[in-house]
Amino acid sequence: MREAYHVELEQLAVNLAGMSVQVADAMERATRALLEVDLGLAEQVISDDVKVDDARAQCEEQAYALLALQAPVATDLRTVLAAIHAAESLERMGDLALHVAKAARRRHPDPVLPEAVRPYFAEMGEVAVKLARSTEQVIKTKDVEAAKTLESDDDQVDDIHRHLFTVLMDREWPHGVAAAVDVTLLGRFYERYADHAVSVAKRMIFVVTGKMPGYGSDDDI
Amino acid sequence: MREAYHVELEQLAVNLAGMSVQVADAMERATRALLEVDLGLAEQVISDDVKVDDARAQCEEQAYALLALQAPVATDLRTVLAAIHAAESLERMGDLALHVAKAARRRHPDPVLPEAVRPYFAEMGEVAVKLARSTEQVIKTKDVEAAKTLESDDDQVDDIHRHLFTVLMDREWPHGVAAAVDVTLLGRFYERYADHAVSVAKRMIFVVTGKMPGYGSDDDI
Repeated sequence: MREAYHVELEQLAVNLAGMSVQVADAMERATRALLEVDLGLAEQVISDDVKVDDARAQCEEQAYALLALQAPVATDLRTVLAAIHAAESLERMGDLALHVAKAARRRHPDPVLPEAVRPYFAEMGEVAVKLARSTEQVIKTKDVEAAKTLESDDDQVDDIHRHLFTVLMDREWPHGVAAAVDVTLLGRFYERYADHAVSVAKRMIFVVTGKMPGYGSDDDI
Repeated sequence: MREAYHVELEQLAVNLAGMSVQVADAMERATRALLEVDLGLAEQVISDDVKVDDARAQCEEQAYALLALQAPVATDLRTVLAAIHAAESLERMGDLALHVAKAARRRHPDPVLPEAVRPYFAEMGEVAVKLARSTEQVIKTKDVEAAKTLESDDDQVDDIHRHLFTVLMDREWPHGVAAAVDVTLLGRFYERYADHAVSVAKRMIFVVTGKMPGYGSDDDI
């Protein structure tokens, strides 16, 4: 019985790591769809999102079954609860990648992004995907130090995001209001995506140490 | 022992209902701060947010203690898990009210909102606060029918939000890019706040029926 139980806990971690890969791939493709004005990639992200939702539902059901049937305590209980939170954050990351893909589709064949802000999004996309891939590693290894490094990557996204705002708020912004609205929302999607990745990592720290590294949001707008 | 346990479950619901009141009050004040350009109210929302974070931490600790010490099953287990999710959503609602208040403070003594969009925000604010207050009732009564009515109120917020976008995207928008950026983000804060209120209500339906009324996000941008 106990052995089957640890197999189930391990399976839950494998599924969560799989969700991290799904949402990293989704954001990678969504970013390329955005930068390269690629409708096919955007459509793929949009149609794949249901798989992330399904994976989340499955993780949650597994977690509930573990709680109901095994009544875990101590570290095992923390692991199951962290999994429930992580699954929620990862699903949300999938939604945010979906929003980026939808923006790319909505404006197709026009590019959503004015040339001047493309580098910001290329960089935010790269760091965001890196964060999601680190999340996968942290879930697999439960490495507290690796989890902590996610915060500095997230700071990088916040910096680019803030910089983007100074570009937008410049009185000389020549691309019109519609583009500014798109850029504002897209910037926010990346920033939130990165925050959720950090939140997953924090939950993993909680599993190992029993202490949550700070409640509240990192969302600094 | 069993009796003490149901007292604790009841106390958890009371605390969650209290969080609903906190975040409803926060959004009510933040909206007034925004509409009436009231710095004092904005400051109050900003300094009160830590209380929401504390209440969330307390709810989560209570829920964890219940799981570890009582190993609830069936409806009681669903109640505790719904409480964990609800606390997360309610904290997020508090953060979104905080963002509205910070926007009001950032532009003070200038108004953030151009006169033309004030009615949209007055209405979104009213419905958002109503949603949070309904959430309090749903937590207290576990009334499935009441929980379902939250969705139609949320549709109202989505409608106003969409309408706001058509105003923003109008080629004749005369208020400049900076105002458009503020209005875009603020609209999104209200829309997300309403979504989270619905999410809390859905979790309460899950407690009663054992079935989640739809995974995935209602966030339709």
